[in-house]
Amino acid sequence: MENSRESEVTVNFSDRRNFATVLRSDLKETFFADDPFQEFRNEPPKRRTIKIFQYCVPMLEWLPKYNFQFFRYDFLAGITIASLAIPQGISYAKLAEIPPIIGLYSSFIPPFVYAVFGTSKYLAVGTIAASSLLIASTIKEKVSPDEDPTLYLNLVFTTAFCTGILQTILGVLRLGILVDFLSHSTITGFMGGTATIISLQQLKGFLGLKQFTTKTNVVSVLKAVFKFRHQWRWESALLGIIFLSFLLFTVQLRKKKPQLFWVSAVAPMVTVVIGCIIAYFADGDKHGIHTVGPLKKGLNPISIYDLNFNSAYIMAPIKAGLLTGILATTEGIAIGRSFAMKRNEQTDGNKEMIAFGLMNLVGSFTSCYLTTGPFSKTAVNFNAGARTPMANVVMALCMMLILLFLAPVFRYTPQVALSAIITVAMLGLIKYDEVYHLYKVDKFDFCICMAAFLGVIFITMDMGLMISVCLSIVRALLYVARPATCKLGNIPNSALYRDVEQYPAASGVPGIIVLQLGSPIYFANCIYLKERIMRWVRDEQGNPNSKTADIEHVLLDLGGVTTIDMTGIETLVEIRRNILAKGIKMGIINPRINVLEKMMLSKFVDLIGKESIFLSVEDAVKTCQFSLNQSPQKGDS
Amino acid sequence: MENSRESEVTVNFSDRRNFATVLRSDLKETFFADDPFQEFRNEPPKRRTIKIFQYCVPMLEWLPKYNFQFFRYDFLAGITIASLAIPQGISYAKLAEIPPIIGLYSSFIPPFVYAVFGTSKYLAVGTIAASSLLIASTIKEKVSPDEDPTLYLNLVFTTAFCTGILQTILGVLRLGILVDFLSHSTITGFMGGTATIISLQQLKGFLGLKQFTTKTNVVSVLKAVFKFRHQWRWESALLGIIFLSFLLFTVQLRKKKPQLFWVSAVAPMVTVVIGCIIAYFADGDKHGIHTVGPLKKGLNPISIYDLNFNSAYIMAPIKAGLLTGILATTEGIAIGRSFAMKRNEQTDGNKEMIAFGLMNLVGSFTSCYLTTGPFSKTAVNFNAGARTPMANVVMALCMMLILLFLAPVFRYTPQVALSAIITVAMLGLIKYDEVYHLYKVDKFDFCICMAAFLGVIFITMDMGLMISVCLSIVRALLYVARPATCKLGNIPNSALYRDVEQYPAASGVPGIIVLQLGSPIYFANCIYLKERIMRWVRDEQGNPNSKTADIEHVLLDLGGVTTIDMTGIETLVEIRRNILAKGIKMGIINPRINVLEKMMLSKFVDLIGKESIFLSVEDAVKTCQFSLNQSPQKGDS
Repeated sequence: MENSRESEVTVNFSDRRNFATVLRSDLKETFFADDPFQEFRNEPPKRRTIKIFQYCVPMLEWLPKYNFQFFRYDFLAGITIASLAIPQGISYAKLAEIPPIIGLYSSFIPPFVYAVFGTSKYLAVGTIAASSLLIASTIKEKVSPDEDPTLYLNLVFTTAFCTGILQTILGVLRLGILVDFLSHSTITGFMGGTATIISLQQLKGFLGLKQFTTKTNVVSVLKAVFKFRHQWRWESALLGIIFLSFLLFTVQLRKKKPQLFWVSAVAPMVTVVIGCIIAYFADGDKHGIHTVGPLKKGLNPISIYDLNFNSAYIMAPIKAGLLTGILATTEGIAIGRSFAMKRNEQTDGNKEMIAFGLMNLVGSFTSCYLTTGPFSKTAVNFNAGARTPMANVVMALCMMLILLFLAPVFRYTPQVALSAIITVAMLGLIKYDEVYHLYKVDKFDFCICMAAFLGVIFITMDMGLMISVCLSIVRALLYVARPATCKLGNIPNSALYRDVEQYPAASGVPGIIVLQLGSPIYFANCIYLKERIMRWVRDEQGNPNSKTADIEHVLLDLGGVTTIDMTGIETLVEIRRNILAKGIKMGIINPRINVLEKMMLSKFVDLIGKESIFLSVEDAVKTCQFSLNQSPQKGDS
Repeated sequence: MENSRESEVTVNFSDRRNFATVLRSDLKETFFADDPFQEFRNEPPKRRTIKIFQYCVPMLEWLPKYNFQFFRYDFLAGITIASLAIPQGISYAKLAEIPPIIGLYSSFIPPFVYAVFGTSKYLAVGTIAASSLLIASTIKEKVSPDEDPTLYLNLVFTTAFCTGILQTILGVLRLGILVDFLSHSTITGFMGGTATIISLQQLKGFLGLKQFTTKTNVVSVLKAVFKFRHQWRWESALLGIIFLSFLLFTVQLRKKKPQLFWVSAVAPMVTVVIGCIIAYFADGDKHGIHTVGPLKKGLNPISIYDLNFNSAYIMAPIKAGLLTGILATTEGIAIGRSFAMKRNEQTDGNKEMIAFGLMNLVGSFTSCYLTTGPFSKTAVNFNAGARTPMANVVMALCMMLILLFLAPVFRYTPQVALSAIITVAMLGLIKYDEVYHLYKVDKFDFCICMAAFLGVIFITMDMGLMISVCLSIVRALLYVARPATCKLGNIPNSALYRDVEQYPAASGVPGIIVLQLGSPIYFANCIYLKERIMRWVRDEQGNPNSKTADIEHVLLDLGGVTTIDMTGIETLVEIRRNILAKGIKMGIINPRINVLEKMMLSKFVDLIGKESIFLSVEDAVKTCQFSLNQSPQKGDS
């Protein structure tokens, strides 16, 4: 340690990487961080072709190893999620204000596509509530589902098409990075807000209302509920409370006894069946218990010719497609990831996006609307013991049988049963404890979360999401606009230099200021950094406790600075000039590879001199102390 | 060093700052980085009042010390910049398509205001070309200056008013931080592009055209020039070439012999005077040499009642006000700063903004349009030896005399003389060498610069600016989305651990991976960091050169991580779980104060255990090696 300077342990000025190397490395870190091609390297050509094919179609990886043992698990799981898919499909189709049968169609074709291209073993394909409501509220601005249901439905298909295109492009271009900008706090707040307004929307079903508002915010919904209070039906409300209690009980049961998860998994199906029986025998429609209405037997009709790209309407599906696309993709990937993680497995975000994209493209051609990996269904699938995406195939086959033979039976499903199912699903999405945790640990994260929540419930869903994302980005920019700097001091009995605020025992070195700069240094924080460094120097010079007011060296520890731009380099030049005018020398400590390269390119190294660039703080302080001892102390004169 | 562990040199877990302290410190760093109030502290109340008063009105700081010695310099400088103010005022008013006299008015009232509130000693107040053109192109979208000149002029005053309000608010709220987001590269590109299109616009003057396009992009301008080729006048062109050659010669002279700067400073005035004489005697208007036309004698009329807030037009002045406000403020502050720096003095960005704001507010009430600190005038002022803002006062008094007595004389100023003056001023703003330097040192900065340049010349000025700013922000976000990580190795014969890519001699430690993480860790880079770390681990395990494939410890050096958010903490938890599943332990090295606080609050410290958090890499490696030696080597079994 002591002889580090003598033994040639110095900053490595020798080899500068050329531009192509740097660019390739940057592009790789940006778009191929997970190094997807590592498996193909060092393989013979034929094997490599197979590997690449397997890479593009993940089914080829697991299908050859598939056996009956796996199938037993997948079969059970597939049946369980099919029983959940029926009520959820009908309910969420209702939220999207499209015919309930579309919800069932959406659980038939897309799961097949996902089974071929998806990388998550546990993800169960289906529609989600938030996207359904978001689609309805966006498309309704252009076309009313009551006045022109066909056009409305076609625009919903077009939305799925737009989402599919977006997801595929994002996946192919490996732009998963965009999804990274939806923070956990944003999603928590957005989900909570959406769950709240969706639950409130269910008052329509609970109270048996025929008319309702098209707005989603809390104020409009509550106003509408009281405006139409003459339509309230006690029969509907009573049935609703019974169903709600039953479902909540099963949820509680699952929490207490996790092995009984299947009770809560089949509970929605049970609710629907009992509801159908009651509505059929009690002639529900005449007694205030509205039912879903006719459901046509038969498989998905082709809808590719129904896609509507008329310029008068196209902006609505594009907007809905983008918003729900980002939302559904984020949720789907996050959910796939979290369940994979429980088994210590990996999913590939970019491949997942392509799988979702193809699923929605094919879906939009076959009368399906937006599908992704919903949390509830995936959780049930995981708990039911699914081993491969084959569970999705089993579910799809079940749906096929139902569409072919049983669909008309569900025409008696009471609206209130669906409302109860939706409400219970939504209540699980409001995570009080997580919000409280955010409040305790990070106030800014809490603000981002609350912005999404309040924005969604009081303005609109997309505004809430956007406000929250903007806040997150502002925060990210503030991070870089105001990088933390701190003064380092020597920790007694060691050669370590640490933040004096954090380690009050650390003491400064007379005549020398050592500052650690945060990262990165570039245009948005240059002026700040210059002012902040000058302030450290000024403070130190005016500090009566300092052993000497005569600062002769300012050492900047750049060990934590990952990157610097032109403005940053110029700022260092300026700082040097400013402090030189006060008779203070500047030293640079441990510049990292990117930073040192820029310094060499811009001749900064030549300006400051290689002898002023040090490898470690100890080294720099020792060298400066040596020169301080040699020169006569100005403080004494 | 060796006994660091024994002598209690450990991470300081003791004192956590409370929320108020952290918030106050964060707010201070964000908005009061330059610590403006440090002078008032520790002062008796009376003195403090005086200091605060002096702080708000910077004139009170320098006026009491003012003496005749200073005045001699300021007087000369003031006269010099006044001689520049006349041609520039008329030219730029022409660019803004408002009566030329407004340009002269704008050099009368605003300099007084700046002299009272400004903090830069060398800044000379005046109008600038880029803002003038930007105002014209924005307002013209709503109102044509030919069809309704009064309304157009009133909207230009309203623009100055909006700019003034914006600048004052930004200054009072200390939001100088917003201006930080215009990077040096953006400004270089924007200025270059603006200079190019402004020079091309001068073809109208050089060729003596009567009609022209209202668009600013290169294609439209060149089309218009050839469309009206039957209007071309050789007299005008000849005179233009002579003036241009003369002005370019004086510029070259200044570059060769800096002490002759005054030749180039008075050259525009000389051009105007000679132009007037030629036009007067040759009856220019009849021979294709168009003149400026009547200029009314007298001081600025009051225009406060002319401000137009009619909702039909108001968006145009607001847009122009915002854009030119940000632009003029940035340029003004940057220019004030650079000249102050040459004398090693300071300017206060936020106070400058307030001074500009008040200047434009008062200006908009007294028939002035947007003013700031133009580069050319300020440079002349500095070279002419100005010592205080009194030079502005002298210039304003000169302008007063001219407005009162000499204004009508300038009615004969040929348009072509103004075009030559503008062109020469603009050519100086295109900085080829700086662009080349950017290209050499930082390709991304170069792209940002070219985006601004090409956007301005091929689309519109505001689009060019916006594209470039967005690119800068994307870059800032990429910085944080992909923080650099590197593997550390031990540099031979020292206790230092450095990046193995940068220092190829550094060698890894068997059984241990030490990774240094970039900053900050938060939602936008969590997924990346997790994947990157898992890849380091995977690579190391699959590395045949590694001394042992049996990694038992992953140590994360967080010394450079300035901040972390909730998602970041959760990611660390996940990483720990993932590697624990592979039988690898995780250690944290040197978390900084903010990071450690979050870790303690979120119980991460309890989870990982205080014994897994180390103060230095050496310390951590030693402890891990000790435990490696104690446990039987798995690799052997």
